[in-house]
Amino acid sequence: MNALGRGIVYGVGVGPGDPELVTLKAARLIGGADLIAYPAPEEGDSFARGIAAPHMKPGQREFVIRMKIGDGQFPKDDVYAAAADRLAEAAQAGETVVVLCEGDPFFYGSFMYLYARLADRVRVEVVPGVSSLMACAVASGGALAARNDVLTVIPAPLPEAELKRRLGESEAAAIIKLGRHMPKVRKILDELDLTSRARYVEHATLESQKVMRLTDLDGAAVPYFSMLLVHRLGEAWS
Amino acid sequence: MNALGRGIVYGVGVGPGDPELVTLKAARLIGGADLIAYPAPEEGDSFARGIAAPHMKPGQREFVIRMKIGDGQFPKDDVYAAAADRLAEAAQAGETVVVLCEGDPFFYGSFMYLYARLADRVRVEVVPGVSSLMACAVASGGALAARNDVLTVIPAPLPEAELKRRLGESEAAAIIKLGRHMPKVRKILDELDLTSRARYVEHATLESQKVMRLTDLDGAAVPYFSMLLVHRLGEAWS
Repeated sequence: MNALGRGIVYGVGVGPGDPELVTLKAARLIGGADLIAYPAPEEGDSFARGIAAPHMKPGQREFVIRMKIGDGQFPKDDVYAAAADRLAEAAQAGETVVVLCEGDPFFYGSFMYLYARLADRVRVEVVPGVSSLMACAVASGGALAARNDVLTVIPAPLPEAELKRRLGESEAAAIIKLGRHMPKVRKILDELDLTSRARYVEHATLESQKVMRLTDLDGAAVPYFSMLLVHRLGEAWS
Repeated sequence: MNALGRGIVYGVGVGPGDPELVTLKAARLIGGADLIAYPAPEEGDSFARGIAAPHMKPGQREFVIRMKIGDGQFPKDDVYAAAADRLAEAAQAGETVVVLCEGDPFFYGSFMYLYARLADRVRVEVVPGVSSLMACAVASGGALAARNDVLTVIPAPLPEAELKRRLGESEAAAIIKLGRHMPKVRKILDELDLTSRARYVEHATLESQKVMRLTDLDGAAVPYFSMLLVHRLGEAWS
């Protein structure tokens, strides 16, 4: 028992959606936890909990972290502060705590904000998971990047000029966080003559998975859990 | 049974190194395969097989794909052509074939070259895995990218000017395939005043894992399975 006590907080990546794409380590930790915490929207179910559910055991306590959005885009700081206090308290009492993280905890994940508030108070271990980035590439039927390609991961909420500049200089790009930004992204891809090179993936690895060429996608509204993969070269697509 | 027959080839990501970071799906498919194929250097052991070994069953046949290097950097085309023929033959005979892929199959992986040669001959399914990209970020103790960061994955074999340009415009970057290119990369990071922002990770998730600030790394020779993570902003590091 070190200075941080015998409890521990695990930040566990649960993968992109298919419960069978959870790692053996994640399944073991989930099944052995005293307390399982997970993010959820202000109202409604937690995606991460849905993935982990088959690996949970009866009697495990649960803590829902409701992600109240602050300025319209990111959760409020006090969401993380309050959650970190609760998790630290449990670990300090000797409990094994698992925080479920969609995909991978450190790839655009919210766990990093808990991690920053926990690492000097309790033992914390992070377990990587299968990222939606890799799951979407597999779903699309084409490699994300090959040989010496530069791969750029570009969040769609960026300003139009910045998005256009980044896409213009990318050999291979993944455009994430599409949601309501899809019309802007489509416009930019059209201007760059890249629309025919883009594949759209929604809900990768879930039963509701959709994969299509961007040219076949109707409508402007897409879910948050969607991604565009753009590759300038023919080689990497099947 | 469709036109492609009842056999199948699975391209299975086995994760970054720790056998417990194999997904449940990968472990199931490995355990149920008739034939297990994996890449290996011209001489020596297969890293992918080492990861999968605890999940293999007695009596499974194995096929080592020796990666003969062509022009000094990439395997020869005929390596893939010959391997694809062998895998297609097994699947056409009704066998379940698993090809083990380090990390994720479609993230700079060699499976894509087999996939391209198999997809119109037999059924092929690709199973994503935990990528070294995510494993290295977790090992480094800092997030790969946060919020609306653009993340750039940059292969170190690129020419110096190209590397410098890409790194100069990246908020967050992962420099992969370091190996013998480390001196060139260090020089560029020094010139860009980014050396103090770079973390070095070797053999992530293995017992031999090493993590350090680049400023603490002695010597110029690093293994192929190493990565540098560079983040301009303080926020994403712990």
